[in-house]
Amino acid sequence: MKRVLVSEFIGTCLLVATVIGSGIMAEQLSNGNVAVALMGNTAATGAVLYVLISLLGPISGAQFNPAVTLFLERRHNRAAMIVTQCLGAVTGAVLAHAMFGLPLVQESAHIRATHGEWLGEAVATLGLLLTIRLGAQYRPEALPALVAGWIIAGYWFTSSTSFANPAVTLARTLTDSFSGIRPMDAPAFVAMQLLGAGAAMLVSRWLLKEEGQ
Amino acid sequence: MKRVLVSEFIGTCLLVATVIGSGIMAEQLSNGNVAVALMGNTAATGAVLYVLISLLGPISGAQFNPAVTLFLERRHNRAAMIVTQCLGAVTGAVLAHAMFGLPLVQESAHIRATHGEWLGEAVATLGLLLTIRLGAQYRPEALPALVAGWIIAGYWFTSSTSFANPAVTLARTLTDSFSGIRPMDAPAFVAMQLLGAGAAMLVSRWLLKEEGQ
Amino acid sequence: MKRVLVSEFIGTCLLVATVIGSGIMAEQLSNGNVAVALMGNTAATGAVLYVLISLLGPISGAQFNPAVTLFLERRHNRAAMIVTQCLGAVTGAVLAHAMFGLPLVQESAHIRATHGEWLGEAVATLGLLLTIRLGAQYRPEALPALVAGWIIAGYWFTSSTSFANPAVTLARTLTDSFSGIRPMDAPAFVAMQLLGAGAAMLVSRWLLKEEGQ
Amino acid sequence: MKRVLVSEFIGTCLLVATVIGSGIMAEQLSNGNVAVALMGNTAATGAVLYVLISLLGPISGAQFNPAVTLFLERRHNRAAMIVTQCLGAVTGAVLAHAMFGLPLVQESAHIRATHGEWLGEAVATLGLLLTIRLGAQYRPEALPALVAGWIIAGYWFTSSTSFANPAVTLARTLTDSFSGIRPMDAPAFVAMQLLGAGAAMLVSRWLLKEEGQ
Repeated sequence: MKRVLVSEFIGTCLLVATVIGSGIMAEQLSNGNVAVALMGNTAATGAVLYVLISLLGPISGAQFNPAVTLFLERRHNRAAMIVTQCLGAVTGAVLAHAMFGLPLVQESAHIRATHGEWLGEAVATLGLLLTIRLGAQYRPEALPALVAGWIIAGYWFTSSTSFANPAVTLARTLTDSFSGIRPMDAPAFVAMQLLGAGAAMLVSRWLLKEEGQ
Repeated sequence: MKRVLVSEFIGTCLLVATVIGSGIMAEQLSNGNVAVALMGNTAATGAVLYVLISLLGPISGAQFNPAVTLFLERRHNRAAMIVTQCLGAVTGAVLAHAMFGLPLVQESAHIRATHGEWLGEAVATLGLLLTIRLGAQYRPEALPALVAGWIIAGYWFTSSTSFANPAVTLARTLTDSFSGIRPMDAPAFVAMQLLGAGAAMLVSRWLLKEEGQ
Repeated sequence: MKRVLVSEFIGTCLLVATVIGSGIMAEQLSNGNVAVALMGNTAATGAVLYVLISLLGPISGAQFNPAVTLFLERRHNRAAMIVTQCLGAVTGAVLAHAMFGLPLVQESAHIRATHGEWLGEAVATLGLLLTIRLGAQYRPEALPALVAGWIIAGYWFTSSTSFANPAVTLARTLTDSFSGIRPMDAPAFVAMQLLGAGAAMLVSRWLLKEEGQ
Repeated sequence: MKRVLVSEFIGTCLLVATVIGSGIMAEQLSNGNVAVALMGNTAATGAVLYVLISLLGPISGAQFNPAVTLFLERRHNRAAMIVTQCLGAVTGAVLAHAMFGLPLVQESAHIRATHGEWLGEAVATLGLLLTIRLGAQYRPEALPALVAGWIIAGYWFTSSTSFANPAVTLARTLTDSFSGIRPMDAPAFVAMQLLGAGAAMLVSRWLLKEEGQ
């Protein structure tokens, strides 16, 4: 169990450090060209998801995400995993700030509070859980690339840029940079993520149920 | 059959939501730098095609495309599949608009009516069907990446940016954003797509015919 | 044999149409931001190489390149293949121009005549042949991705942007757009490509020779 | 052994030529849009890592990196490999300059001397060694893509852009271009790389130790 928790901690920490760090890098270099900044953010996040899930999947399942753990974890203590993921995520935010010489903990002022963005989070998390459930069934060896692929798409086609992860959402309230979210906007994001995840369970259960064709 | 239709509906819906949503996102962020916008559009579309075909291929074949269904579907009712794809596509357009807080159904004013673009659609769809036919023969496990690869290339090298799909073309008449097409320009696009698909059938049949070497 | 030639024709044609077409698209959209243009050019070329080599490799070896055919082809008539590749390449240039509504055959004014660029072509082609030889030995199933990867890198790290292909070089003299090359500069490019290819044969032969370790 | 050294020389040379060459290309084309320059740099480096590790891994392990050789090499003479890697890296810098018609050896004036960047190097190299150790255990066939993926992410999320390699660091002191580093700043980078690599050994040893779950 200790090994599972260390794996989840490392993975969530490096995932968040990548999301926030690449956002800072991209913002600093892009002179306000936000599309280019999002492209850098996308490349880094997609790449690190592929790597971390490949490496840590065999150890802990590489969930790094309370919404996934809540709905899909069956073997280990879910509460311990979720707490660990949140601690890892916060550590990742601190690490990203330390690397860029910024205040270690910040309060984001990035407003994300439209109905459209809420819908975006539900869609992003629904798709993420569908990806994991169907992927585990039909292409288990490709899961790292599939999850990375879904998030790469989600960064661009959902208005919220696909947080799709309560621990990452928490950590992103602690950075006043490109990838941040105002603390007061986070609860609605998390609620919509859980809603989307729950919907994905229903849809995937029905799709995976062998039906007489 | 119900499961096949649900799969085609979900896939076409998420495909169109990605095409249109990433176009809106890219347009909003890129300050008129259209090349960067197309790059975001390309990354998102390529990634989502890889994911959706991997996940839904085992359920319904993951065609999401009336031109593919018309020429390649043999087991299921093609008319039902095509109607479902069109409904999914339109739903995807509405979903993208909802996520970005825009009017749910719009009328595109994006003129796409040159002979060059018609030729582009024929080439794009010819290549797509060749990819599916030869890929299914020689690299079935790589089909998701192959289709994504062809469309990534097509977004850049065809003057029409490779719609290559009548259902997606229909849905794109309903968005007045980056990826839209004026309704009156759609029929010619669809005609050229069908022409290209038909040509691909002839070429691939000949190429796949074992010949004495 | 006829099937081999048709395969080489289609592949070289679509490869060149992608190289030139994506260059035109990128140039039109990027408002003079040439780095973004090269990025679009890179994505399209890498993607199409992956697709075409996957699909046509089983039919003709998917060489699409006289430098490769000259040094590596053993089963089929090399002269016929090289002539076919050149015809396919020229057809691809015409096709790209037709899709974008431009004069079908143009004369490039793009000067590429420095010693550095010559060195670039030798390095690019040396690397390409090494990739094919070592890849065929150690990772045959990954050859499409390996060749695409080498060219993606070469577009950025060689000063000549890695033509690395005499047939493509010929075709690129016929376009006065982003990816063109002045006709009088082409012979030196081709000479350096053959030099690099020859060097790669020596290096790879030595590396592949099993030595007592 | 000779074959191993030639393989490490070629690999490190082409890796550095790509890192520096793509930086020069990107800088020349991007008109000061540094984010786009880093994107070109990232695409080229990721692609070439994938290719070189795939091709030369079976011959020499494709380390190209003294920090990796120092901690992970068990079969061959480590000193000879490290010297060879450094020679290859310097040759790569000279090659890149030659291709772009620049002075063959330069002195970088690029200041990289913050605590944040030092931390970045430690994180980058820790992650790189974790990737190699866990990847070799769980996904050996995917190692080329995993290493490329980690470096793609590192280029964006570490403030130092992930040198993560003493030989590459040495070579980058010799170029006064985008990817350079001031000679006096290099020793601290190398020290942090070794620190990160050592930490990775401890972490990975513990993670790989089968524990009773």
